Amino acid sequence: MAKLVVLYKNPADRAAFDAHYESTHVPLAKKIPGLQKYEISTGPVKLLGGESPYYLIAVLHFASSEALMQGLNAPEGKAAAGDLRNFAQAGAELLVMDSKEV
Amino acid sequence: MAKLVVLYKNPADRAAFDAHYESTHVPLAKKIPGLQKYEISTGPVKLLGGESPYYLIAVLHFASSEALMQGLNAPEGKAAAGDLRNFAQAGAELLVMDSKEV
Repeated sequence: MAKLVVLYKNPADRAAFDAHYESTHVPLAKKIPGLQKYEISTGPVKLLGGESPYYLIAVLHFASSEALMQGLNAPEGKAAAGDLRNFAQAGAELLVMDSKEV
Repeated sequence: MAKLVVLYKNPADRAAFDAHYESTHVPLAKKIPGLQKYEISTGPVKLLGGESPYYLIAVLHFASSEALMQGLNAPEGKAAAGDLRNFAQAGAELLVMDSKEV
């Protein structure tokens, strides 16, 4: 299993972020080839012991890191990545990892 | 569903981090009441477009954010949190979120 974890920083305009994320970004990202599961945070992201710099966390699941990178490099992956500039001006960290259950 | 996402910063001594994480921290964290699933990254965490500040990502799943906070506040949760000082001197961000599938 591989995961793309996207940490979205706190946006200046939360309502505009939410509207674009739900109506435009989710449909784009769901088209990424090889995407098996797509989870997002609901409500506030809390940082234990401090103020969270993150507004939203998305976790996209793929069968392997190869499948993940193929998906991101496909036209649909590039379209989803290109859409970040339309709502994630505050910044986003895109982390890729293989994972296992312990 | 609620998740505790732990982002461990790059340690000074990776071998010491790995040894402590596997032999001591995982067994402690697995005792947290209400823990349903416990995933960790394997191999390097990659940051798209840059150098990852993170060495390891752990995702702990609970039925709800209430169950998550009850687990962290239980003696077993406090023991796992207290163990961070023994191997995560470089720092760790503990993020709590409710999540849904989209």
